[in-house]
Amino acid sequence: MKLTTTIARPDVALIDQLSKFSSATIHEAQGRLGALDSVIKPIDRDMTVCGPAFTVVCAPRDNIMLQVAISYAEPGDVIVVSAGEYTEAGSFGDVLANACLARGIAGLVTDTGVRDTAEIRRLGLPVFSRSVSIKGTVKETLAPLNEPVTIGGQVIRPGDIVRGDADGVVVVRREDIEFAIGSSQAREDAEAGYIELYKQGKTPIEVSNLRPVLAAKGLLIDA
Amino acid sequence: MKLTTTIARPDVALIDQLSKFSSATIHEAQGRLGALDSVIKPIDRDMTVCGPAFTVVCAPRDNIMLQVAISYAEPGDVIVVSAGEYTEAGSFGDVLANACLARGIAGLVTDTGVRDTAEIRRLGLPVFSRSVSIKGTVKETLAPLNEPVTIGGQVIRPGDIVRGDADGVVVVRREDIEFAIGSSQAREDAEAGYIELYKQGKTPIEVSNLRPVLAAKGLLIDA
Amino acid sequence: MKLTTTIARPDVALIDQLSKFSSATIHEAQGRLGALDSVIKPIDRDMTVCGPAFTVVCAPRDNIMLQVAISYAEPGDVIVVSAGEYTEAGSFGDVLANACLARGIAGLVTDTGVRDTAEIRRLGLPVFSRSVSIKGTVKETLAPLNEPVTIGGQVIRPGDIVRGDADGVVVVRREDIEFAIGSSQAREDAEAGYIELYKQGKTPIEVSNLRPVLAAKGLLIDA
Amino acid sequence: MKLTTTIARPDVALIDQLSKFSSATIHEAQGRLGALDSVIKPIDRDMTVCGPAFTVVCAPRDNIMLQVAISYAEPGDVIVVSAGEYTEAGSFGDVLANACLARGIAGLVTDTGVRDTAEIRRLGLPVFSRSVSIKGTVKETLAPLNEPVTIGGQVIRPGDIVRGDADGVVVVRREDIEFAIGSSQAREDAEAGYIELYKQGKTPIEVSNLRPVLAAKGLLIDA
Amino acid sequence: MKLTTTIARPDVALIDQLSKFSSATIHEAQGRLGALDSVIKPIDRDMTVCGPAFTVVCAPRDNIMLQVAISYAEPGDVIVVSAGEYTEAGSFGDVLANACLARGIAGLVTDTGVRDTAEIRRLGLPVFSRSVSIKGTVKETLAPLNEPVTIGGQVIRPGDIVRGDADGVVVVRREDIEFAIGSSQAREDAEAGYIELYKQGKTPIEVSNLRPVLAAKGLLIDA
Amino acid sequence: MKLTTTIARPDVALIDQLSKFSSATIHEAQGRLGALDSVIKPIDRDMTVCGPAFTVVCAPRDNIMLQVAISYAEPGDVIVVSAGEYTEAGSFGDVLANACLARGIAGLVTDTGVRDTAEIRRLGLPVFSRSVSIKGTVKETLAPLNEPVTIGGQVIRPGDIVRGDADGVVVVRREDIEFAIGSSQAREDAEAGYIELYKQGKTPIEVSNLRPVLAAKGLLIDA
Repeated sequence: MKLTTTIARPDVALIDQLSKFSSATIHEAQGRLGALDSVIKPIDRDMTVCGPAFTVVCAPRDNIMLQVAISYAEPGDVIVVSAGEYTEAGSFGDVLANACLARGIAGLVTDTGVRDTAEIRRLGLPVFSRSVSIKGTVKETLAPLNEPVTIGGQVIRPGDIVRGDADGVVVVRREDIEFAIGSSQAREDAEAGYIELYKQGKTPIEVSNLRPVLAAKGLLIDA
Repeated sequence: MKLTTTIARPDVALIDQLSKFSSATIHEAQGRLGALDSVIKPIDRDMTVCGPAFTVVCAPRDNIMLQVAISYAEPGDVIVVSAGEYTEAGSFGDVLANACLARGIAGLVTDTGVRDTAEIRRLGLPVFSRSVSIKGTVKETLAPLNEPVTIGGQVIRPGDIVRGDADGVVVVRREDIEFAIGSSQAREDAEAGYIELYKQGKTPIEVSNLRPVLAAKGLLIDA
Repeated sequence: MKLTTTIARPDVALIDQLSKFSSATIHEAQGRLGALDSVIKPIDRDMTVCGPAFTVVCAPRDNIMLQVAISYAEPGDVIVVSAGEYTEAGSFGDVLANACLARGIAGLVTDTGVRDTAEIRRLGLPVFSRSVSIKGTVKETLAPLNEPVTIGGQVIRPGDIVRGDADGVVVVRREDIEFAIGSSQAREDAEAGYIELYKQGKTPIEVSNLRPVLAAKGLLIDA
Repeated sequence: MKLTTTIARPDVALIDQLSKFSSATIHEAQGRLGALDSVIKPIDRDMTVCGPAFTVVCAPRDNIMLQVAISYAEPGDVIVVSAGEYTEAGSFGDVLANACLARGIAGLVTDTGVRDTAEIRRLGLPVFSRSVSIKGTVKETLAPLNEPVTIGGQVIRPGDIVRGDADGVVVVRREDIEFAIGSSQAREDAEAGYIELYKQGKTPIEVSNLRPVLAAKGLLIDA
Repeated sequence: MKLTTTIARPDVALIDQLSKFSSATIHEAQGRLGALDSVIKPIDRDMTVCGPAFTVVCAPRDNIMLQVAISYAEPGDVIVVSAGEYTEAGSFGDVLANACLARGIAGLVTDTGVRDTAEIRRLGLPVFSRSVSIKGTVKETLAPLNEPVTIGGQVIRPGDIVRGDADGVVVVRREDIEFAIGSSQAREDAEAGYIELYKQGKTPIEVSNLRPVLAAKGLLIDA
Repeated sequence: MKLTTTIARPDVALIDQLSKFSSATIHEAQGRLGALDSVIKPIDRDMTVCGPAFTVVCAPRDNIMLQVAISYAEPGDVIVVSAGEYTEAGSFGDVLANACLARGIAGLVTDTGVRDTAEIRRLGLPVFSRSVSIKGTVKETLAPLNEPVTIGGQVIRPGDIVRGDADGVVVVRREDIEFAIGSSQAREDAEAGYIELYKQGKTPIEVSNLRPVLAAKGLLIDA
């Protein structure tokens, strides 16, 4: 088995621009695509992350490949772990969090569990996981590094951009980052307009111009 | 299809009185009735809500009727959404939260997901949901407004009173509100007495007078 | 049916020493044993507990035996409740929390639900549960006190030591407490060393000396 | 507490006509309404049922009201039990199945568990449940009989018609039975036509005339 | 680590007597105790098993200790596997089923998954599991043999008797087997009497003599 | 949006050879890879399928793209549907099953629900799904055809080979089919040898030569 340790990453300036938008905005703006399942959440609701995915597969209850991934990831990378959605394992804790911080890794997104959450919060590393579990892992099984992985019902390829916040995690395909930035900005501008209309007292039926849509579907309103 | 947009609401003074009791107290006081399933929780544990239900059904992954509901709800109403317990949709976010606040809507209770939770917390609108999901919704399917709906294993009728806090959500039937207030007050008074006895060092067996109950069931205690 | 109300407890000084280690550290240090399933968590992430288990079985939706347990537990004990993993019941609330505090009980660990969480947080009693539910319980069914119980996939015997924190709960068998303290200290010392190495820029492959392990498994790294 | 034991039932001839259609057909034919959640299934895939609902609420793990319901139901009725979706209780077994058969009850639909399934299959009583569990129930808690209940995410009122088969269960509101029969027949006729077209080699795009729909949504097909 | 391979077993004649009763009857007859969670079911509804438990712990996704257990179990034993309720592993298949049959092992009860179910059904070995999964296991982790294990929410000790059928699995403590046989027979006799009364047209209220119970709880029946 | 309707398929003779092996054997033989999550199962345990994947994404509760896929799939193809793991929709029934059969489609594998299962079983089309649900779907949302999809925790690309049987579903990458056939045959030959040894009375410890492995891990056996 041969591992890929080098990946293509998007321009840092683009990642910086993308990081200004929320995960929900980006998901909508790129056509309601890329949202990971809602069970994957930050271990602290104030955590956010944005960076290129450094992908790794782990067997359930096994973190040897995660240790390999941390060893080769570069500053700014987000480690993305596909480990079979196993909730009862703490595959990452404060020791490896220190390793990530020392190496400049931007954060971790995993579909299995983590532990030492109090200390990780204190350290300030953004970690998004499916569960928090104290149960230990083994170091037995080789698995792919930097191949496309499945996590939270999405396919993530190395170098795709992962954006996470309190609401969850979205992935942007590397070739779509500029489109995602542009359409996210457009959506945010539009939403600011809607909010303004709502503050003026307009209703959703008015703001979204739903009356003809509803009438076409056969709706009669009693008022 | 014809929608009902006007509903009968209980007296505001009664809602105000009911709002002084916790969801758990009201549930017990009205005979262990009305508690929604525990998966429906506030997006911030400090949020509370109390008001008449303005009920709406949404198809899973569809929020067109929620937009209609917000358009017709009145100040103080709690929008109650029955959407098939689908966790993977963010059917409500910061834009609609602004609409609710501008219209004086008291809060939202839904059996599907919401998003933009950080901003909704900042805005201060009480939102109780089954999940937090960034996934977008469509606007396709008509469904009933202000008919009895099922949510969290309970039937809620328009104008019934919904009370939510950190522990969850309870519904009080409109015709039972005065009974619920009275018996909640009685229960709270009784509990204050029990707490006093506990602080004096009494045991639950003493405070609840369990000894004859236990003996009747055949219990022998070794002490 | 006859109840056991007196149990053997480990030395308080040992409990005090054990309480300095996290649940995850203890779990690993005693050979990856004793971790309860990850669904059992504190109702506030800052809560911690450490003490001898005073075990009780409750039928689902029934808390009569929990009331008995609180009546006989001693200062420093942790009440451990096995109630069939039923999520839709609030079997413990602020009134019984006052009873526990008045009696010096150290905390509660249960595989069913609790309620009045805002008030319990205010009171400061550490409570670890499977869910938060406002639904009431009955007082009907006798069940064993201070026999070995199953909770979160572990067997806990009266007098075994229960340690909980933000990450979850671990049990240490009474006869293993000194071993657990010693090996936890050793593990913590080792981890401090690893963290130091990470801060110096070492990789996990270096710190864990994984290269020969990986090579033996047939791994080739492209770098 | 006062129980209602007499209910209005639809004409038997109408029930007989409705029983010729599958649960899926009826659900579609009445506008995609009335389907219970998919977790409620027959204990044998060859079981079917169709009849007026005789509704009862049970507390979880308690079947006293189910015994009351069986005592008052009439021949042809389907007992519909709302018991809080508790999976770990066998609230109905071969003894009560004999009671149902002796009284001519048409079947049972419940959101909790049943047991003695081998014997019930031998007896031939149609039973639809959320789970099969051997765990016993108590007989403690009064609850409503023949009031609207919530089960599988639907509201069922006494006298509404319940239709179940291998795919699951659907409810038809009593006032809608003739509409449901008519539109089910129309749907079945239409489907027979579609099947004939498929047998002739037509594609779904042709049979459902999807090409303009797809084009309007912006689809380009490479063939 | 030292393994226990010899266990005390109840008399074969007693096991034979117990095997005449269903899992549900035994559970009720011994005081509603011993039922494993309902997710553990036979892979074919016609499978039944009754025999002394030969208990083993496996790490999730690891079956090395199951292989050890099969090597030391004796004819008539039921292998009971506690493997952390992990659904995504097929820890037992047709090859080991052949090993069990050759050694006279009576069956297998496990809280993880199995595979090769078509062939195991053909071979006729009774297997009760939490899931069916094709995913492979490793052979890495030592764990206890013939110590008390937790499975399906019950504690099972080596030599306790395990009885499974279509409805699920119940455990009888070794010291309680004669009591369980006697009270199961008494219950079956009583149930035969109830069934006779039902066939004569009696209602559950009459057969269970519920009228005074219901009246004491305050029930008024309208008929 | 532009759809791909033509895909590269492996040689039919190779598919025929692969179809002789069970899903579990293939999964193990190709290095414990490719198994879909265990929740995806045939609607009848006697159903099997083997063929190239014709992949399609559907929005949850929407089957318009499935209809497109059936229109373009070729004889022998297996339609593979990724629809967000939504259990409460019957996205495929007897009418489309007739379409598949008329077009020679080999079967369907989906991560959402199907319906009309009795009729589909009668027709004999192999269908593997996550659930059986009678709830209807809409025809609104465009989505990719014949791009890599995620289903059951695996990535499946068009033309990869899907093999399903009673135990579940495995995917073989198109380029690995000859390797999978060879190693499956080798595994089956080896297993036949093991079974012969077991029939001769050997133990798993002997057949798998576990004694040195166990000793190296520190195991002491009391016999």
